[in-house]
Amino acid sequence: MIEITETAFIMNTFFLLICGALVMFMAAGFAMLEAGSVRSKSVAVILVKNIGLYAIAGIMYFLAGYNLMYLGVDGGFIGTLAMWHPDDHAAIAGDYSAGYASAAGWFFQMVFVATAASIVSGALAERIKLWPFFIFCAILCAFIYPVAGSWVWGGGWLSEMGFKDFAGSTLVHSVGGWAALTGAILLGARRGRFSKDGKPKALHGSSMPLATLGAFILWFGWFGFNGGSQLSIATTDDALAVAKIFANTNMAAAAGVVTVLAFYLAIGRKVDLTAALNGALAGLVAITAEPLMPSALMSVGIGSVGAIVMLSASKALETAKIDDVVGAVPVHLAAGIWGTLAVVLSNPEASLVTQLIGITSVGAFVSSLSFALWAAMKYTYGIRLHWSHEDMGGDIAELGIRAYNLDHGFEEQGKAVN
Amino acid sequence: MIEITETAFIMNTFFLLICGALVMFMAAGFAMLEAGSVRSKSVAVILVKNIGLYAIAGIMYFLAGYNLMYLGVDGGFIGTLAMWHPDDHAAIAGDYSAGYASAAGWFFQMVFVATAASIVSGALAERIKLWPFFIFCAILCAFIYPVAGSWVWGGGWLSEMGFKDFAGSTLVHSVGGWAALTGAILLGARRGRFSKDGKPKALHGSSMPLATLGAFILWFGWFGFNGGSQLSIATTDDALAVAKIFANTNMAAAAGVVTVLAFYLAIGRKVDLTAALNGALAGLVAITAEPLMPSALMSVGIGSVGAIVMLSASKALETAKIDDVVGAVPVHLAAGIWGTLAVVLSNPEASLVTQLIGITSVGAFVSSLSFALWAAMKYTYGIRLHWSHEDMGGDIAELGIRAYNLDHGFEEQGKAVN
Amino acid sequence: MIEITETAFIMNTFFLLICGALVMFMAAGFAMLEAGSVRSKSVAVILVKNIGLYAIAGIMYFLAGYNLMYLGVDGGFIGTLAMWHPDDHAAIAGDYSAGYASAAGWFFQMVFVATAASIVSGALAERIKLWPFFIFCAILCAFIYPVAGSWVWGGGWLSEMGFKDFAGSTLVHSVGGWAALTGAILLGARRGRFSKDGKPKALHGSSMPLATLGAFILWFGWFGFNGGSQLSIATTDDALAVAKIFANTNMAAAAGVVTVLAFYLAIGRKVDLTAALNGALAGLVAITAEPLMPSALMSVGIGSVGAIVMLSASKALETAKIDDVVGAVPVHLAAGIWGTLAVVLSNPEASLVTQLIGITSVGAFVSSLSFALWAAMKYTYGIRLHWSHEDMGGDIAELGIRAYNLDHGFEEQGKAVN
Repeated sequence: MIEITETAFIMNTFFLLICGALVMFMAAGFAMLEAGSVRSKSVAVILVKNIGLYAIAGIMYFLAGYNLMYLGVDGGFIGTLAMWHPDDHAAIAGDYSAGYASAAGWFFQMVFVATAASIVSGALAERIKLWPFFIFCAILCAFIYPVAGSWVWGGGWLSEMGFKDFAGSTLVHSVGGWAALTGAILLGARRGRFSKDGKPKALHGSSMPLATLGAFILWFGWFGFNGGSQLSIATTDDALAVAKIFANTNMAAAAGVVTVLAFYLAIGRKVDLTAALNGALAGLVAITAEPLMPSALMSVGIGSVGAIVMLSASKALETAKIDDVVGAVPVHLAAGIWGTLAVVLSNPEASLVTQLIGITSVGAFVSSLSFALWAAMKYTYGIRLHWSHEDMGGDIAELGIRAYNLDHGFEEQGKAVN
Repeated sequence: MIEITETAFIMNTFFLLICGALVMFMAAGFAMLEAGSVRSKSVAVILVKNIGLYAIAGIMYFLAGYNLMYLGVDGGFIGTLAMWHPDDHAAIAGDYSAGYASAAGWFFQMVFVATAASIVSGALAERIKLWPFFIFCAILCAFIYPVAGSWVWGGGWLSEMGFKDFAGSTLVHSVGGWAALTGAILLGARRGRFSKDGKPKALHGSSMPLATLGAFILWFGWFGFNGGSQLSIATTDDALAVAKIFANTNMAAAAGVVTVLAFYLAIGRKVDLTAALNGALAGLVAITAEPLMPSALMSVGIGSVGAIVMLSASKALETAKIDDVVGAVPVHLAAGIWGTLAVVLSNPEASLVTQLIGITSVGAFVSSLSFALWAAMKYTYGIRLHWSHEDMGGDIAELGIRAYNLDHGFEEQGKAVN
Repeated sequence: MIEITETAFIMNTFFLLICGALVMFMAAGFAMLEAGSVRSKSVAVILVKNIGLYAIAGIMYFLAGYNLMYLGVDGGFIGTLAMWHPDDHAAIAGDYSAGYASAAGWFFQMVFVATAASIVSGALAERIKLWPFFIFCAILCAFIYPVAGSWVWGGGWLSEMGFKDFAGSTLVHSVGGWAALTGAILLGARRGRFSKDGKPKALHGSSMPLATLGAFILWFGWFGFNGGSQLSIATTDDALAVAKIFANTNMAAAAGVVTVLAFYLAIGRKVDLTAALNGALAGLVAITAEPLMPSALMSVGIGSVGAIVMLSASKALETAKIDDVVGAVPVHLAAGIWGTLAVVLSNPEASLVTQLIGITSVGAFVSSLSFALWAAMKYTYGIRLHWSHEDMGGDIAELGIRAYNLDHGFEEQGKAVN
């Protein structure tokens, strides 16, 4: 093992903190993507969910999640139930083998669990009640994600077996996707999303600029997500790796967009803006499991196939009458599975069988626990808005406000002055 | 004193520039928070104020502010009136004791004064005239903030006395808060904000997504704000400190949000999105005076109490019929005072008496000068829009435009084609 | 030449990647600036163009552009037609003279070509067809920009002659500006933009907050744009240079805003928000050709004159009845020319004659090729929307959607429930 010097320790800490801040900003990206994609009567409540879930993720990962994922997993299935606290005694004593400050590591991992939770909110928007959603997030961030994480990144059984998931196509994106899919099935579709004969009906998002802004922010943050997952930049090898990851990440995302554009050109139909945005995201999710080993050209291919997988999965969900408001399942689960499989194309250490074992074991664990949790809440407190509240919109029903008040004040003014 | 090497000098410069850019982006956060929080007839004018104040802050801090704050304060009450210019002769000669490039230092400090000015615009929105606001900003950034800053960070009397304000709960946030509060009192409330019997009336913000985006941008930028205030990352101690600051900053903000959510759950009322956003900001302001020394758990507590202080101050302002459009005073002044006091909980070098002296002396200085300046303008040029202009909205009255034109062009088209 | 060590190589790589990510985020800035500046019937289609052009830029610069710009130019007029692939054999073998990882260099240059393409979309908005725009972007990024770039930054004839264009006032901004101007002339103005007697008519942008957000994002990203163009931060000289560039960049932008505000105050008219935003951008463009050598005060002057140039060019365009939806030509072409000339004020190595040769040769090359390309498409497939589609708006005509659906769902709900 390479001895890590003080300078390297400092640079890695700096690097992880900046990358972590970029990933933190993805919370804003998800919030805007979702706020723009829901109908205008459901915007404020999705905003509450997004700021709330990011906060809950930070608190729960601090109280329980981090050490369940990383402390004493030792080839097993779960870590230790203990509150996190920074531990840098070794570095203070001159042993820099930890690579970076422990708080930088916590911060960087915390923003990943928040990303997984962000995926859920979009899929279930416009019909899930506020508090059950928050309860789910808390348990996802305190337990479900950390346990799966202990297997993959915490030194648990899957990592021992050789499962490769560099920055979390499976761990972050599929975990979020499974949680979203089980919730979407148990919730059912939004009223009016499918006609009585099963035809899907487009329910138009409130603001395309905000959805697009969200996609751009996610793309921007993804450089921190994938680049930072190298966890070090302080050797020549690491610096070359991080640079290649940045380039490959952009290649895959760009290919995802271009593939969607080419698809609509090929079938002779009008370009779908939402699909183009999801093409970028699907390319990003697909390259996330292995952004380092592929050539630039292969990264283009991985992103392009990711976009096709996303388009196909969207169609399949509609056929199955599963309502996913922002396409979180096609983007994060379907393209995440593809990306995890695609590792074998470039990484000689990866085996298809092991990748499949990882995908299915994480999928089985997360979907069964998620299903159980959603079901437990469904048959007790209830997870779905009353139909009259859904029709009214969560903004009025749950928050008592409207997200937009764009009458230029003329109406209100009349009342205010008198 | 530790000898600072060339490598450390370079890393610190890089670090301060990136952190400074993050803080600069907070100007966008304030702009969006305020644009979303004002009524739709006052959006364009708040945008002009925000881009204008950031520009004015940069120019005035260059022309006068920086050297008033940092040049030759020497335990006293004020620095030197002189235009700033970079001075790196020592570093060029091989003496790196300054720690970082002087222009990086200027840039990092400049974005802080801009933050203080941003706080003012939100509180006084929808009724203050454009030019008096800009004049106030110019004097705030050229004189008021720098003089207070010379006491706290410039080596002046308060720092000699042992007053602790790491990243500016008092200096940045309370200074902005006092300036806002005095202005709000002299301006009076917006028409219709309080009924004749004194009951407050909610005047709905134009766009909740933009307000939320603003809060997320502020949270993102705050990592640069607090982390960069360590001013160095190039020793193990500094790197550990910056990492802990990032983690603690997030803990406090997350706790602020969760506390607001829990508060509404506890009182059995609908969650207030704006309060949740302000909970994050109050947590951030509260931890800003001392983001390094508290444990993670104590940071949660500091942020949580910050949110409660903010909620209480909001109520108190309403009772006093003071109209603060975005809650700048509860967030920046009230939580800033709390954060400055909370330093004594974790920093053994801090004394409650000294903290109180710092809070009150800065408060007395800034509020008396601000009051005098607002009053001088009020009784000459006037600071408040004519009531008919206020009813019409500043966008039409002062700029002659509307901020939103969302009729999809159909009306306008009719006119354009004929 | 200074020997570059491994530590310097790593720090430079880290630095370029972060700066490149900031420049990448400018794509979001352009998207928001343009989405807010077009009428509400043309918002979705400008969003498709922006996400599409950024993706196309990345793919084309990978497939052809980068090596046309940088491989074997050798004092000449063009590089080599070859797909890019990372080449770090030297660094792996211990020779760090390349300065940074090749993929970091590719990424940083790629986001610059995307910026040039972003400039075009805004000027031609609301009337250009989707696919011809994408074809133009592909050729701009694969050939036109790279060939001009080979002259200036690739070691070609202009750089041999001593032409100075530090971060691309000419190469990026004027190139985009010439491409936009030729397109705007061949397209003609939007219907209704000029009355029959030639008077310009304001066609109101859909959302001032989004336009302002875009300007702030561009300002934020510009620190990466200009700062990163130093290409190194790992010596004292480089660190001092980058810091000075950050400060000067902010000075020029701030001066641009303040100049526009002062202009409207001086002429006694209402402040124009769009002009204030473009003042910031013109200041930024103007300082981009030489952000290092000027003093802070001279940077203020360069930015201030940049804003005046922009205001004058806007007026001239209106007089010439050329319709530039976002003011891309005044901001990027006019202020870019000014900035390129202003290099001689501070850089003793620059000659006015050489600067003029650079401006005119790049201008002649780009405008003639762009004109030919736009004309070739105009007289075959056509580049302009049918008048009925333009009246209807590109969102409905080309995409079949509306960008905003803010009726709070009440209308739609009626249909959905029945």
